[in-house]
Amino acid sequence: MVRATQGSRKGSWRKDEIIDAAAECFMERGYQATTIDHVAARLNATKGRIYHHYATKTDLFFEVHRVGMEHLFEAIAPAETMQGTAHQRLNAMMVAHAKAMLDYHTYENVVAQGVQLHRFEQMSPEQRATLRELITLRDDFEQKFKTVLQQAMDEGSIDQMDVSITTKTLLGGLQWSIFWYRRQPNETPEHREMLARKMVEPFVKGL
Amino acid sequence: MVRATQGSRKGSWRKDEIIDAAAECFMERGYQATTIDHVAARLNATKGRIYHHYATKTDLFFEVHRVGMEHLFEAIAPAETMQGTAHQRLNAMMVAHAKAMLDYHTYENVVAQGVQLHRFEQMSPEQRATLRELITLRDDFEQKFKTVLQQAMDEGSIDQMDVSITTKTLLGGLQWSIFWYRRQPNETPEHREMLARKMVEPFVKGL
Repeated sequence: MVRATQGSRKGSWRKDEIIDAAAECFMERGYQATTIDHVAARLNATKGRIYHHYATKTDLFFEVHRVGMEHLFEAIAPAETMQGTAHQRLNAMMVAHAKAMLDYHTYENVVAQGVQLHRFEQMSPEQRATLRELITLRDDFEQKFKTVLQQAMDEGSIDQMDVSITTKTLLGGLQWSIFWYRRQPNETPEHREMLARKMVEPFVKGL
Repeated sequence: MVRATQGSRKGSWRKDEIIDAAAECFMERGYQATTIDHVAARLNATKGRIYHHYATKTDLFFEVHRVGMEHLFEAIAPAETMQGTAHQRLNAMMVAHAKAMLDYHTYENVVAQGVQLHRFEQMSPEQRATLRELITLRDDFEQKFKTVLQQAMDEGSIDQMDVSITTKTLLGGLQWSIFWYRRQPNETPEHREMLARKMVEPFVKGL
């Protein structure tokens, strides 16, 4: 898997800056209403500077989506490979994912918009192929939770339940923060860590 | 609270039909890309027929949102008032809510779009007031789950946890079906009931 964040750093620091600004614009206005002009205005830059890196708004949107997914993969990697039972790994992955959704809130908002993009847009065959790649990335991410969930059931540390529906519901609960979370003025990573642990509680303690 | 579904039936059956068609259009294309023309085309009707009932696309969108919320309130009402412990009521409310999200999938997709609408749109003061009403409806709905969750903690049937964050995560998990659920050709209400029970499992059995 190509690491988009590394790829973008190869060009110049300005490319990262463009993606950051684009993520903010897409989050605030949605895909439809955002234009390259909005992104340029946010950077006090010309449109040309953006077109130098991204041919269309859709390409820029997909890049934000890809970087957003990369952040999610990177966040759960330590939990996924840590020593311990499947149950311990599942728990650590849940907290890491909940926290990443808060840490990269702007990007993950755009990722969520992407899920439904095929409903909204006429795309070129090339863009449609890129979207399929992104959807594969999403499926791969979901699969990581399905695998550890199945292992936790196999080791007997959690009850038998439908792996697919459970994974979708679990991830959905932790991802719903895209709708309600707002970054606070003096917020620290520790605050987000605490919030993430509270989000995991109903799954861990049970209702 | 005025029941929008009753209100719309006072006019004629055609008004319900317009809202149904509008919900489908908004789900498929999103708010931005949907026009009154799309809704009229889906009904094989003239735009005039729709403007007779709704002055703007935004008003039509808000009506879909309101009807979607009404369905959710109606779905949990029996569970909310049934005999039994708070824990039993909470469980029944979760299943009823999960099922309603599937039963009224089209409407609830539009409801989810509505949450973020204030980010996307310039609205008139009147429309902004209507949106505030809808947001109040959403808060009232959330409050019903907060209340029964607090009662279940007070009676000692579930562990102490953060009521607000738990409610958001719980509802988010059950509502995430707006992103993955697709109505199947020969699907029955019993199938959706079964699916709803599977969605509730990770919360009830614990992970």
